Amino acid sequence: MTLSDRYKQVRRRSELICSPLQVEDYVVQPIVDVSPPKWHLGHTTWFFETFILKPYFMGYQDFDPDYNYVFNSYYETVGARVIRTDRGNLSRPTVQDVYKYRAYVDEAMYRFLCGDISPELNELMVLGFNHEEQHQELLYYDIKYILGHNPLFPAYDANYKSLKIEKSGSDTFISIPEGIYEVGFAGEGFCFDNELNRHKVYLNDYQISHNQVTNGEFLEFIEAGGYLDFRYWHAEAWDWVKTNAIASPLYWHNIDGQWYNYTLRGLEPIDLDEPVMHVSYYEAYAYASWKGLRLPTEFEWEVAANKFKWGKSWEWTESSYLPYPGFAKAPGALGEYNGKFMVNQKVLRGASEGTPPNHSRPTYRNFFHASSRWLFNGIRLAK
Amino acid sequence: MTLSDRYKQVRRRSELICSPLQVEDYVVQPIVDVSPPKWHLGHTTWFFETFILKPYFMGYQDFDPDYNYVFNSYYETVGARVIRTDRGNLSRPTVQDVYKYRAYVDEAMYRFLCGDISPELNELMVLGFNHEEQHQELLYYDIKYILGHNPLFPAYDANYKSLKIEKSGSDTFISIPEGIYEVGFAGEGFCFDNELNRHKVYLNDYQISHNQVTNGEFLEFIEAGGYLDFRYWHAEAWDWVKTNAIASPLYWHNIDGQWYNYTLRGLEPIDLDEPVMHVSYYEAYAYASWKGLRLPTEFEWEVAANKFKWGKSWEWTESSYLPYPGFAKAPGALGEYNGKFMVNQKVLRGASEGTPPNHSRPTYRNFFHASSRWLFNGIRLAK
Amino acid sequence: MTLSDRYKQVRRRSELICSPLQVEDYVVQPIVDVSPPKWHLGHTTWFFETFILKPYFMGYQDFDPDYNYVFNSYYETVGARVIRTDRGNLSRPTVQDVYKYRAYVDEAMYRFLCGDISPELNELMVLGFNHEEQHQELLYYDIKYILGHNPLFPAYDANYKSLKIEKSGSDTFISIPEGIYEVGFAGEGFCFDNELNRHKVYLNDYQISHNQVTNGEFLEFIEAGGYLDFRYWHAEAWDWVKTNAIASPLYWHNIDGQWYNYTLRGLEPIDLDEPVMHVSYYEAYAYASWKGLRLPTEFEWEVAANKFKWGKSWEWTESSYLPYPGFAKAPGALGEYNGKFMVNQKVLRGASEGTPPNHSRPTYRNFFHASSRWLFNGIRLAK
Amino acid sequence: MTLSDRYKQVRRRSELICSPLQVEDYVVQPIVDVSPPKWHLGHTTWFFETFILKPYFMGYQDFDPDYNYVFNSYYETVGARVIRTDRGNLSRPTVQDVYKYRAYVDEAMYRFLCGDISPELNELMVLGFNHEEQHQELLYYDIKYILGHNPLFPAYDANYKSLKIEKSGSDTFISIPEGIYEVGFAGEGFCFDNELNRHKVYLNDYQISHNQVTNGEFLEFIEAGGYLDFRYWHAEAWDWVKTNAIASPLYWHNIDGQWYNYTLRGLEPIDLDEPVMHVSYYEAYAYASWKGLRLPTEFEWEVAANKFKWGKSWEWTESSYLPYPGFAKAPGALGEYNGKFMVNQKVLRGASEGTPPNHSRPTYRNFFHASSRWLFNGIRLAK
Repeated sequence: MTLSDRYKQVRRRSELICSPLQVEDYVVQPIVDVSPPKWHLGHTTWFFETFILKPYFMGYQDFDPDYNYVFNSYYETVGARVIRTDRGNLSRPTVQDVYKYRAYVDEAMYRFLCGDISPELNELMVLGFNHEEQHQELLYYDIKYILGHNPLFPAYDANYKSLKIEKSGSDTFISIPEGIYEVGFAGEGFCFDNELNRHKVYLNDYQISHNQVTNGEFLEFIEAGGYLDFRYWHAEAWDWVKTNAIASPLYWHNIDGQWYNYTLRGLEPIDLDEPVMHVSYYEAYAYASWKGLRLPTEFEWEVAANKFKWGKSWEWTESSYLPYPGFAKAPGALGEYNGKFMVNQKVLRGASEGTPPNHSRPTYRNFFHASSRWLFNGIRLAK
Repeated sequence: MTLSDRYKQVRRRSELICSPLQVEDYVVQPIVDVSPPKWHLGHTTWFFETFILKPYFMGYQDFDPDYNYVFNSYYETVGARVIRTDRGNLSRPTVQDVYKYRAYVDEAMYRFLCGDISPELNELMVLGFNHEEQHQELLYYDIKYILGHNPLFPAYDANYKSLKIEKSGSDTFISIPEGIYEVGFAGEGFCFDNELNRHKVYLNDYQISHNQVTNGEFLEFIEAGGYLDFRYWHAEAWDWVKTNAIASPLYWHNIDGQWYNYTLRGLEPIDLDEPVMHVSYYEAYAYASWKGLRLPTEFEWEVAANKFKWGKSWEWTESSYLPYPGFAKAPGALGEYNGKFMVNQKVLRGASEGTPPNHSRPTYRNFFHASSRWLFNGIRLAK
Repeated sequence: MTLSDRYKQVRRRSELICSPLQVEDYVVQPIVDVSPPKWHLGHTTWFFETFILKPYFMGYQDFDPDYNYVFNSYYETVGARVIRTDRGNLSRPTVQDVYKYRAYVDEAMYRFLCGDISPELNELMVLGFNHEEQHQELLYYDIKYILGHNPLFPAYDANYKSLKIEKSGSDTFISIPEGIYEVGFAGEGFCFDNELNRHKVYLNDYQISHNQVTNGEFLEFIEAGGYLDFRYWHAEAWDWVKTNAIASPLYWHNIDGQWYNYTLRGLEPIDLDEPVMHVSYYEAYAYASWKGLRLPTEFEWEVAANKFKWGKSWEWTESSYLPYPGFAKAPGALGEYNGKFMVNQKVLRGASEGTPPNHSRPTYRNFFHASSRWLFNGIRLAK
Repeated sequence: MTLSDRYKQVRRRSELICSPLQVEDYVVQPIVDVSPPKWHLGHTTWFFETFILKPYFMGYQDFDPDYNYVFNSYYETVGARVIRTDRGNLSRPTVQDVYKYRAYVDEAMYRFLCGDISPELNELMVLGFNHEEQHQELLYYDIKYILGHNPLFPAYDANYKSLKIEKSGSDTFISIPEGIYEVGFAGEGFCFDNELNRHKVYLNDYQISHNQVTNGEFLEFIEAGGYLDFRYWHAEAWDWVKTNAIASPLYWHNIDGQWYNYTLRGLEPIDLDEPVMHVSYYEAYAYASWKGLRLPTEFEWEVAANKFKWGKSWEWTESSYLPYPGFAKAPGALGEYNGKFMVNQKVLRGASEGTPPNHSRPTYRNFFHASSRWLFNGIRLAK
């Protein structure tokens, strides 16, 4: 596929994800973690404008110089930015303006991509694709949050098809013997800087589950009083449970004694056989603790990943998000990409049904704060 | 004018105020005090549906029962409500849905108003009109805040005409002699419960200014270091100044040494001859204190009101918002209207250019918290 | 009494109030409103050192120049100060050091008072006495809070005698006819600047209760669900009730179905015949509202004060704390004394059993925020 | 040494550490992390009373049943507790009462220890000793914070002798070759549950510094603008720097252009040759990042620990505090000891001059939140 075709494919997919939205849905920001969909559309465009067009495309004119201020995210290197909590207060640029901005930048990009593209620029383009794909996944999370926290519970798409992963018939665990293993990305193709360098780790004997924990299994934890017993929780998790009155996964609603789940199709009775989703690391740990088990480390997960099916939802690991041996930040603004988040975050492995095609690999290191629950994630146990 | 004609006039005016808005502008809530414009449009409609149609129009069907939850404001009597800070997180109902809701209720109201209307219902209708007119004024405040806090500074209406009030040639003060005066509403026509009962007050000799304080005069206060000298401020005002880094009226911006003002026409150089607007009571008091003067009480204002021109912007008084002798709350939900705010609020008198025609009178008691600045208000001095 | 004798009397009384305390009790600050007792002892000393000795006593040497930083309260004019919430973090100066500081300043004061004292200085001395007497009353409030919020409920003085005020036999109200009345301080003796200038007010007919509301009467309000029904409360009061889970006066504890009250003697069953104490203005208003009555204004209180017994506890009025006609702040640091608090405070009238002898008069204007409950205060009703 | 002798030794040392304090110093809690010294003295006593005397010493009578409420810390299993931020509000029990409590429990313990002590109880006793020794170290941290944040900067002990560690003459790094290493506690003697199980890890080639970073070296970072350049900081660290206006290590004061350091001897000019102390993990990381280096992992530290001198101050590692393979919580209240903190904490290795004799070993895993700076800690670099 040419760079230009790939560009078109990625850019279209972002807009496709937003196609069921009303204008109003693009605008709001109910919590700090969630960004308004129009912001994602603008920010991914700003990335190509700022890092490709402005430095490399002679004679390129900004669409609007104020947009740098509005659509810059965390890139401290590139000028002032709208602080994150303010994004939901911005009615302008309008959704239509953002689409015009996308069209303007796309048109310039197509012209630019007709020229010679150096290997360095090619690499930057690929980073831009992967960056926009990450925001595509965030778009799913954020749209679900916006609609799922509206008292009218509007559907995103009444015909939305969830990914179904066949359960392994066996409930036994996969056993992996003690020894030296290699982890981290190697080979061709794109990866993020945080997956480099492939290196050796020593693992003890361990076992990891064939299947993710289901809604039905998690319901047993609730019914056994798991949210009420501090013994299963980390100290800071227990504070979090009490302060936020957490008593079930996000999007679960107990209505007249019956459990419902907000899905992208709207409010539905809970499907007990489906993997549980939208639990924080705190909850995943507490559940494992209640079962007398534990979560796998990210290396245990990676080493065993070819032995079970994954991809329905990201899986919390026991690992903290830390640099691999020899990790070094890239110079300049792009160097801010990953390294600066390497404190107080837990690693998730796998992929989710919101992950773009070809955007997943067994070495991918996703990361979120231990309290996050609005991402598409679940639980796999180890011992 | 028939009730039906009056209804149409009021309802149209709300929509007219919103006509320059983009869909996105209807949705956001940058601070707790500001409500999204679509909420105002829905809430004023909910008022007629809840207090007129549902109790009095046989066979009326709610437009949508969930709207009570969304558009109820502070009326604790009438069921659960969306807490105020959440209004800006609601993308649904859409703006179009809200306009449909208005059309649906309006259509029912026109049919209802063809029937016999009892004097009690007539009174309730008039309250509904005045309620919607209050929200029309809030619409101006809130729209200005939403657009004026956007980094792109979009105009509400590039041709918006501010109200001009001819300055009195004389800078001298109006003198009012000591004695017993009557204050409060008397006579025909509508007034709020807080303006009743007309009663006697004893005033000492006082003087009140012909004109409001101008931008130019207020600029002298800034340049004299008024915001930096605690001696002019109340203790809690001084904390407010420091905590919020207040250094000028709201909407003033010092860009490269030149003062600009966001108006409904967009960002403009400050007009020194215009009355200063968007100052808190704290600032009005500090300004007066710096001048060696004071603010009038609400009764001083009312007694002298026929001797000066007013109506450009509400005027802070020294008075706290307290009940008049014999004040009694109406029974039921409407009784929540005014009385429950009678603590920790300052009274403003007059009217503003955002006040609907015929919605002002010299006995009108407006009230806001001492720190509020997003309303259309200014300063008149006394001694 | 000579100035010197009066000085000794006032200074001794502060130390007498603290005499039952343990060293540790002098140090803590459980809430912002409460100051550590050793701070009161230091601050009142600092007042004489700063305003009398340093400017007027030739050759006076500071006890310790750092104490200005530690014991200055809100006097912005006189240099940097320890922010109020930090007072409870200071273990030094020790209690013993503070008593040494008192002795050092007292010794200098006695020498100073042997000389000629100008009328201006005499006036300043009298202000210093009244200032220390105000802090004596705060000492009672703060000590009660410190001990009454300790899980061990230590007594201040197991033999503490509460003030008993004979109930008027009659439950009828005192009637005052409509007319012009004079209010404010006049005559000889000390008063604060906020009580000046005596001036005329016009009052409508009103009635005011002979007696304060009792614990038994207030218990009826609790048992009738008064804390659970928003209709009796101001809007901001209702938020306060819910946010702070307020369900009874401060110091009331329901233990196994029986109501107890922490008094300066320790925890005791509630005495139903005693006046209720430690209720906020919000609660006083809600109680009155539930009874279909109201609180008196400060002028109604003052005009009728010679017709009922008062002095057990301060009485909330409906009045906000505002300047009297012609009020002017004194120049310099002492001008900060009262005026800067004249916003968002309610006036209380009367006196309490913690008020020093000769420190009360019918024109005295006490003031606190509407949510305050740790002062010695109660409720008198009007209609 | 007999158990009884060891008990006496440990118990005496806690009181010895407090011997220079004034009564007032025992009481305050300036920040949540700091506990009042009297609380440490009571809590360590409560530990022996609760886990030894009450379950195992027939006929033992509590000193005061309310003390469980006051001196329980985080042991959720053992009844209600005073929430941590409230500790500084408690004037009672007095310091003298706490010493009486200690004497009472000690006396019972000596009698108890005359009897037969089972191996399980022996183990519990050793845990109690180590627990009290941990609090001895916290006593140093907390006392330093209490005195060092007092505006009078009182000395803890004017003759306090800091630990001096001879600098290695060489500035070169120690090189460790790639390979499998064993980490974790093995052998005789006490260790905490978090140091078990000794297990294999695979390390890449690395180098670790002979010496800790000095005040002089850290000053270069400050002077080079290290606190002003986001590029050296994690994203959340940068927020922390800006929110808290962090610009130097804790206890550093720039007075008239000269850097001073609060030490246990009082305020002193900074000694440039001494190791820098009181920096958060955030700052340690930023410093390393500015130098183009990094912090060691806890395993790199442990493997090389016999090749450099340590013990002056704890050393931040890059490692997060996570369970070792096979880690399992003990059952019951003691199981809360370590495991429940294994999220969002960074590991420190080594020991400090505040660490009790014989309380350090190369496998010891200390842990604090990344923002903590009041502990005795410093920086060692790796590459």
